[in-house]
Amino acid sequence: MEVIGRRITDLWFTECQTENMKLDLRISNILLNKDTEYQHIVVADTEEYGRIMVLDGAIQITERDEFCYHEMMAHVAMCSHPEPSRVLIVGGGDGGILREVVKYDILDTVTLVDIDKEVIQASRDFFPGVSCGLDHPKAEILPMDAMEFIINHENQFDVIIVDSTDPVDFAAGLFQSSFYSDVFKSLKNQGLLVAQTESPFAESRLMKQAYLEMKKTFKDVYLCWGAMPTYPTGMWTYTIGGKNLNPKTSLRTPPTGLKYYSEAIHKHCFTLPAFLQEIIEQYNA
Amino acid sequence: MEVIGRRITDLWFTECQTENMKLDLRISNILLNKDTEYQHIVVADTEEYGRIMVLDGAIQITERDEFCYHEMMAHVAMCSHPEPSRVLIVGGGDGGILREVVKYDILDTVTLVDIDKEVIQASRDFFPGVSCGLDHPKAEILPMDAMEFIINHENQFDVIIVDSTDPVDFAAGLFQSSFYSDVFKSLKNQGLLVAQTESPFAESRLMKQAYLEMKKTFKDVYLCWGAMPTYPTGMWTYTIGGKNLNPKTSLRTPPTGLKYYSEAIHKHCFTLPAFLQEIIEQYNA
Repeated sequence: MEVIGRRITDLWFTECQTENMKLDLRISNILLNKDTEYQHIVVADTEEYGRIMVLDGAIQITERDEFCYHEMMAHVAMCSHPEPSRVLIVGGGDGGILREVVKYDILDTVTLVDIDKEVIQASRDFFPGVSCGLDHPKAEILPMDAMEFIINHENQFDVIIVDSTDPVDFAAGLFQSSFYSDVFKSLKNQGLLVAQTESPFAESRLMKQAYLEMKKTFKDVYLCWGAMPTYPTGMWTYTIGGKNLNPKTSLRTPPTGLKYYSEAIHKHCFTLPAFLQEIIEQYNA
Repeated sequence: MEVIGRRITDLWFTECQTENMKLDLRISNILLNKDTEYQHIVVADTEEYGRIMVLDGAIQITERDEFCYHEMMAHVAMCSHPEPSRVLIVGGGDGGILREVVKYDILDTVTLVDIDKEVIQASRDFFPGVSCGLDHPKAEILPMDAMEFIINHENQFDVIIVDSTDPVDFAAGLFQSSFYSDVFKSLKNQGLLVAQTESPFAESRLMKQAYLEMKKTFKDVYLCWGAMPTYPTGMWTYTIGGKNLNPKTSLRTPPTGLKYYSEAIHKHCFTLPAFLQEIIEQYNA
């Protein structure tokens, strides 16, 4: 474990959330600060949100609120698919979504494909509460390019969860129709694709792009949302493509001990604030 | 209109949201920057959220997201009270909640009591889209201390909405049981009290205080929530005390043209994420 700093007063991590908006978190310690083959990674301890992982300047996880994001990414699909036995996670090398997915007895295998093995290692080293699912007997971890992986795995998955970073550099392809088309093929006859699609306030352009690109392949696309404090604006969207499936109805009782998701939240999360409902109706027009 | 600055590159407004967390917004112009009798007020133009009003360093309204807060504060109560003809707004001198309340034909009179007349004037001067209800024929505007006002108005109001600043200095009393008890008395036999109660992530201590203090007088207390990007963590709570009334059921069609609230949102805003549901159950135990 590489410890670069010790407790220092007035040491801050600053995220440039947009060109015109920044979030600052007071930090007590920097635990990792390096370039990987694909991105820059920082692990630091903050006073407000506990330990955080930052990739290319953007907060990916904080100990205190990661549950909001990881539970929404995993359980909406896992609870609405009739038999989610074969699951693929694209990205998500920290293991947070995996930790949620392996809670289901109905699961047979979950494959996690993340291009950057150093993210996986950083999570193992510094986030035991997040990475704890990575060694689960039903989990297969592949450090490789998901876009290559997926074209060789047609008709294999029940649920595919795309836990991408922001769509720049190597992650840009994960927001494009050709990728969604490959995902569609690699889903079985009935399947669900879940993708994180940013904030409707800070990045509505990206939400729109994902929705419309997904709609080129998936006839039925659904938007849901939740609170996620450390992501820009604190309001986060999740876009779900249904292959002969509608994710709005929960079919099973979720695992016990969850902190964000519940059967009631499942129902709630598809109810959009009026402005967002209107945006989606414009997309569908 | 007092214009202090002109467009300047790299001029920032920074809000210290907690001791360990800050939000920075790039500003192009400072329009007002002064001490009133009660607080410091800043009006500035930001690139991200349009024009903002700041009181004692805390963002009160931004042009771009004020609708989230003002609509939740107004419409949940206005739509669930059987006959909300007499409404009191405590604080809220900017007029945002008032603008929403006067949209109802069933309204007879709305009284706004804000201790600081300079907030009211700043809104008139710089936020025409927010202050536009202040001159409505059904509106009565009183620049005075709401705590004094309320003890002289027993059994008069159907709905009381407490749009307080954070509970420090002159606003601290607005989060205490003696005030809630006075509010209870000034409600008619059936009535609703709505109060903004901060974020469960950044200020759960305040949410707890408001809930428990309110419960000393109101037998039935309800928590609902919504997105509010520029308030700390982006997740905001609203606590409702019911005097012989349950606010969970919407009884009327809301006004047209709303951007956040809808009948569907009314139903779902009382559905709390699991951790928050658990907190409330602990309060009730």
